Amino acid sequence: MSLKIAKRGAISPFIVMEVMRAAAEREAAGGEVLHLEVGQPSTGAPAAVIAAAKRALDGDRLGYTDALGIPPLRAAIAKFYHDRHGLAVPERRVVVTTGSSAGFLLGFLAAFEPGDRVAMAAPSYPAYRNILMALGVVPVEMPAGPETRFQPTVELLEALGHPVEGLIIASPSNPAGTMLAADELRRLATYCGEKGIRLVSDEIYHGICYEGAATSALTVTDQALVINSFSKYFSMTGWRLGWMVVPDDLARSIECLSQNLFISPPSLSQHAACAVFDCTEELDANVARYARNRALLLDELPKAGFDRLAPADGAFYVYADISAMTDDSEAFCRRMLAETGIAATPGVDFDRERGHHFMRFSFAGATEDIAEAARRLKNWR
Amino acid sequence: MSLKIAKRGAISPFIVMEVMRAAAEREAAGGEVLHLEVGQPSTGAPAAVIAAAKRALDGDRLGYTDALGIPPLRAAIAKFYHDRHGLAVPERRVVVTTGSSAGFLLGFLAAFEPGDRVAMAAPSYPAYRNILMALGVVPVEMPAGPETRFQPTVELLEALGHPVEGLIIASPSNPAGTMLAADELRRLATYCGEKGIRLVSDEIYHGICYEGAATSALTVTDQALVINSFSKYFSMTGWRLGWMVVPDDLARSIECLSQNLFISPPSLSQHAACAVFDCTEELDANVARYARNRALLLDELPKAGFDRLAPADGAFYVYADISAMTDDSEAFCRRMLAETGIAATPGVDFDRERGHHFMRFSFAGATEDIAEAARRLKNWR
Repeated sequence: MSLKIAKRGAISPFIVMEVMRAAAEREAAGGEVLHLEVGQPSTGAPAAVIAAAKRALDGDRLGYTDALGIPPLRAAIAKFYHDRHGLAVPERRVVVTTGSSAGFLLGFLAAFEPGDRVAMAAPSYPAYRNILMALGVVPVEMPAGPETRFQPTVELLEALGHPVEGLIIASPSNPAGTMLAADELRRLATYCGEKGIRLVSDEIYHGICYEGAATSALTVTDQALVINSFSKYFSMTGWRLGWMVVPDDLARSIECLSQNLFISPPSLSQHAACAVFDCTEELDANVARYARNRALLLDELPKAGFDRLAPADGAFYVYADISAMTDDSEAFCRRMLAETGIAATPGVDFDRERGHHFMRFSFAGATEDIAEAARRLKNWR
Repeated sequence: MSLKIAKRGAISPFIVMEVMRAAAEREAAGGEVLHLEVGQPSTGAPAAVIAAAKRALDGDRLGYTDALGIPPLRAAIAKFYHDRHGLAVPERRVVVTTGSSAGFLLGFLAAFEPGDRVAMAAPSYPAYRNILMALGVVPVEMPAGPETRFQPTVELLEALGHPVEGLIIASPSNPAGTMLAADELRRLATYCGEKGIRLVSDEIYHGICYEGAATSALTVTDQALVINSFSKYFSMTGWRLGWMVVPDDLARSIECLSQNLFISPPSLSQHAACAVFDCTEELDANVARYARNRALLLDELPKAGFDRLAPADGAFYVYADISAMTDDSEAFCRRMLAETGIAATPGVDFDRERGHHFMRFSFAGATEDIAEAARRLKNWR
């Protein structure tokens, strides 16, 4: 008898990972690839993190930890908020997670029932939508363009015409790289508080900003689910480690879910991450490289015909409106890879409707790769 | 306005983790603890794994990997089935996961809809029940005792009087340590095939057997979801790495879910695990220690009054019927910790009904700890 396959498992692939695979196949066949597709630093972890990992390998059995994370790491994260942001975050609200991915999964399960509606800007990080759908929650995408810096607003929420149970914000955002001004963040948080909407603030790109620092949702509310990660600014991508700052009303639920769904985040990554907060010099040098790459792309892309670019306030992305060039961004990106060796991500990953007219360039890589990509693009088409 | 908290997040804690915390608090207060509560090896990873991890720290950027795992590890796992079990498992069906925990989450999402019913023996690993409930699937617990070696049978399934969409088996099982005979496994798999029931086979304790080797569900069906891990026999617990062998009809769904919910398993753990299949000598020495610990407990526990023990065919647990001593296993375990310093797990973690009369001793620890625990128990009460 043939067996059932759950409909909820039929979510979209994460298209950037499919692009990565196509790029890897090209490389395996002897072709060269310039990687402007993937949203991760081209650097490894800071030297002190590598050293701490080696010490842990020698000195620790690396068994399960408390589901919420090892106490020194939770304390270091709380201290980070104090030192960097002047914020008092109690350690009890800090939950170490297996990447921000686990933070979303745990937070969504704890906060939203099947059938609930959660709003977000389109374009957005595709896993928001796909994880919500796997959990039976209805993603409500609010088309957001240059007029709101690709960010949600109270007006967009009001215009929905129906209530929502949640709102996801990201500042700086992926793919647009744009930021919410502090007063707009406060307006959104206040509105959510009034309407009983759970605010989820994805702060994974904090620390990678070019036009002033990002504001944490923690400065304006203690009811938000704040998600962060060691994968971007902290350059520990494959270590699969992140954290949440959870509101007290969800803390116990998130603890029980963490115990059952994850047991604990990776031990070695936790021990190593304790060293990362002292690596500011090395990490800020990465950001300085992103800034150079960004300036290069913002200067050169328009000369190659990519002249409608979102303001890249932060993160390491340029989101380009390519409606003058194509109405099929997937085919466009495939052709670009085949003809120039440049891998980039079609906008449909982030916005199923209007994404056919957009694409995302990541500038997290080496400056020489970005420069070479710009040269090739100017000679293409 | 106060915010909603999702009912589905209100799952039970993983009680063994609460016991671990109580034990840690006792230790922090200067008390001594003999750890017979936690289901993990007291050994770290094999030396060759540590060495491989150090090489990866020096030589690899440790970024995201393919969501299904790095190709050499998937190939090594397929080869392991060939070498150890004489089974041909195609690499395309091997999915590397963030521990068996991720395997259950991904497999359950791909195979079961909200409202579906999934059967399992009571007692069982508590996360089966708790993860299913968080995902809206109804766990159907079939009370199983010594008469079926605490294992499910076709007769127990028939006796339910209603259809189920899934069946979870574990051989050796946690907490009972009992195994399914090969012919009983075949009967269950055949029945599941006939009735359209998705079989989920938790094979995490394979390799830790005292009364003959365990049989993989892969020998009798290619429609089962087979879950395994590097945490038990392979002694890489905190590395958070496991794998699935997935049926072809669920493969694409599980891939998309993996991409979106996890991005990839921890990179360093994957690189290090490639070395673990060559560590048989070291790993089998661990199993020899478990065998000594098991013999010691099976000999000594009855002298301390714990004389109704499940047959510990495999894994590293003795599941004891303590109905002659208490009808509140939680209070009993708390008192045991307070009065003897021995941490053990109350049966309610595994069987909410009859678990009040059971407890689980783990013998994964050092032999001298097990011997000391046996001495203390004989002098207690």
